[in-house]
Amino acid sequence: MAKKTSLINKADIDMFMTFDLSFNEEELKKYGLEFGKHCIETLNGKSELRFASHPYITGFIDGYEIDFVPCYRIKDSSELKSAVDRTILHTDYIQSHLTDEQADEVLLLKKFMSCVNTYGANYKVSGFSGYLCELLILEYKTFENVLYNAANNWHNMTRIDLEEYGTSGNFKDPLIVIDPVDKNRNVAAALSIQKFNEFIIAARNFLEDKDKLKFFQKHEINTTTCELKEVFKKRKTKCYILSISVPDLPTDVIYPQVNKTMNSLKRVSEMYDFSLLNTSYYLHDNKAYIILEYEYDILPDVKIHNGPRIADKINSQNFKNKYPDAFIMNDKYVNISPRKYKTVNEMINEVLKPENMSILKLGKNIKEEIINTGYNLSGVDEFIDNDAKCEDIDEIFLYLHPNYNIER
Amino acid sequence: MAKKTSLINKADIDMFMTFDLSFNEEELKKYGLEFGKHCIETLNGKSELRFASHPYITGFIDGYEIDFVPCYRIKDSSELKSAVDRTILHTDYIQSHLTDEQADEVLLLKKFMSCVNTYGANYKVSGFSGYLCELLILEYKTFENVLYNAANNWHNMTRIDLEEYGTSGNFKDPLIVIDPVDKNRNVAAALSIQKFNEFIIAARNFLEDKDKLKFFQKHEINTTTCELKEVFKKRKTKCYILSISVPDLPTDVIYPQVNKTMNSLKRVSEMYDFSLLNTSYYLHDNKAYIILEYEYDILPDVKIHNGPRIADKINSQNFKNKYPDAFIMNDKYVNISPRKYKTVNEMINEVLKPENMSILKLGKNIKEEIINTGYNLSGVDEFIDNDAKCEDIDEIFLYLHPNYNIER
Repeated sequence: MAKKTSLINKADIDMFMTFDLSFNEEELKKYGLEFGKHCIETLNGKSELRFASHPYITGFIDGYEIDFVPCYRIKDSSELKSAVDRTILHTDYIQSHLTDEQADEVLLLKKFMSCVNTYGANYKVSGFSGYLCELLILEYKTFENVLYNAANNWHNMTRIDLEEYGTSGNFKDPLIVIDPVDKNRNVAAALSIQKFNEFIIAARNFLEDKDKLKFFQKHEINTTTCELKEVFKKRKTKCYILSISVPDLPTDVIYPQVNKTMNSLKRVSEMYDFSLLNTSYYLHDNKAYIILEYEYDILPDVKIHNGPRIADKINSQNFKNKYPDAFIMNDKYVNISPRKYKTVNEMINEVLKPENMSILKLGKNIKEEIINTGYNLSGVDEFIDNDAKCEDIDEIFLYLHPNYNIER
Repeated sequence: MAKKTSLINKADIDMFMTFDLSFNEEELKKYGLEFGKHCIETLNGKSELRFASHPYITGFIDGYEIDFVPCYRIKDSSELKSAVDRTILHTDYIQSHLTDEQADEVLLLKKFMSCVNTYGANYKVSGFSGYLCELLILEYKTFENVLYNAANNWHNMTRIDLEEYGTSGNFKDPLIVIDPVDKNRNVAAALSIQKFNEFIIAARNFLEDKDKLKFFQKHEINTTTCELKEVFKKRKTKCYILSISVPDLPTDVIYPQVNKTMNSLKRVSEMYDFSLLNTSYYLHDNKAYIILEYEYDILPDVKIHNGPRIADKINSQNFKNKYPDAFIMNDKYVNISPRKYKTVNEMINEVLKPENMSILKLGKNIKEEIINTGYNLSGVDEFIDNDAKCEDIDEIFLYLHPNYNIER
């Protein structure tokens, strides 16, 4: 709000209460929370104590959610005590550099980013933060010029260094934007390579399209269960949906764990020779849904099991004693051994048993939930017919049309 | 015969007619063939002109097949005019170095090799030549000592250099035996890594077994069609047999072509994502049979098709125009494209069509035969039930029990 760059319906209000560095952290916390509480009560709001990197107090006042955050009044990043203090420096920098006209350009950029789903530095989106949008406007002056540069000039490790610190060579991210108030920080560090490239294509699509307005509206999804089932039927893949309850924790705690779980299932599937066309995941209503689309879900009962070299007499004799049907292939023994898992169903149900789980990397909370409340594994048709709510239908549609948000 | 190392029922007789180096090649050929023909007629035989690296004449006399081969009387390998001349040097060397007792050891070694199917430098076996057996006895003195060394000391690039030429470092074959009459030749060059290792295991098996006599008899195969079908049924693999007519040409011409065809089908199968458990081939009655045992024979209708990087604007736009459903995966476009071949049957039948064949490396004669007389592709069960003769049953048994010849 101080920067005049907050989107309608998008902003919670943050109220920073700045303390002189002479206060110690105990005092800052005590006075900060007391003062915040007093303000909220004076305005007839309700207060609630919360904790992030350090504690703050939230007030619900006239329908707004306002965070009262105690922090230090620092002059530059060398005095930094916690990440929250940096916000003051960012606000100062933007206030002293961004013109009112540019603030409007920031609003356009943020709204566009929001509609093409690249806005937000949280783990779920892994996109562009508000501050990053502001710096992009400072660099490129206008919304359209940001898009023009993204569309035509951006490539992996694109560098922006407004204060010419010369430190951008220290980073290897897709986009490197040196923080004007901290030369050792990349403001775009949380931006994934996926969202970086999605924004580039969204920019190209926008610049080529005559109907620009559409890009400032959400792309509504309009599909049916029949339509989705038809796509999978045509592909002739074997698609499964694994659903797991997740505890009520911040999304930035849960999302990385679900992502880790998906990647681990992918790795284990390939280890057991079940090759995947594609995977994805999404969360809603305290449940995580992992989509696993296999190329086939049945393998033969046997596989080639490589043994030692023939020249290694002791090991090759041990191998032959253990596997009497072992035979020579070139310079080593091999055996045609029973396969551990012959179907995808069998494999997933086995590796998710508490005694076998250690083969997977699940994340602490996901692991606990599976042990305590189990999971559900369905074929995608069965899932669509029996379990899918509107959100699931939309998410499965987006899985099948991954570019949908950046196209109009 | 001159070396006293020929196995009963194994030897055709070679009669070398040596000419002084003062004769030119035209004269050698003319007088050689005339003189050979005269000998054969004098002994009331029938003669037949043949061609190898150079022409010779074959006589059928008293039930024996005797080749009369004209060659030069050379003193050492520097005078060599063709491979045939070297035989004289080999015979001289063995006659002057191998004792009568050692000749008996050679016979044991050759008979053993023959029974475990590692004897013969022809392409079909790719095993040990007779001369190589003789040199092994010169190196290790006795049959049992050859086996002891093979069983315990042989490894990849084992070196034997009877005349201590010091040239063995120039070779990278599994077994390097420098020719005593030609320091730049490895007598074991035609020995495959497979047969080298099979002999090592055969030697270990022989030395550990109390009933040594069994190793001087062929290992008879005793199986039934039911037994074979049961093995494939248990494996749950998808095994196909491709049979192709082959022209009546020397085996050393045809075998490499069939091997090439098999390897090419393997490569193309894997290119189209059909993964193989194992493959093999065999020939009989002017037909080649290629065994292709797949892990699965059906794939989905689609596959991931990788496109250009997003940063490459022109190519990524072309890709997107060509494939409107292309989507971003990390930093590149991918598309879910129709798969060219969805079944093994479809794939093989397509790539064997004359217009598509260029994707395969078939060998000249195999290619011609497929174009002229076609081929037959069957599932292994169907093949066993409808087409298999005794030889096929034995060959399929050996495919399923690849160590059978070296075990007793």
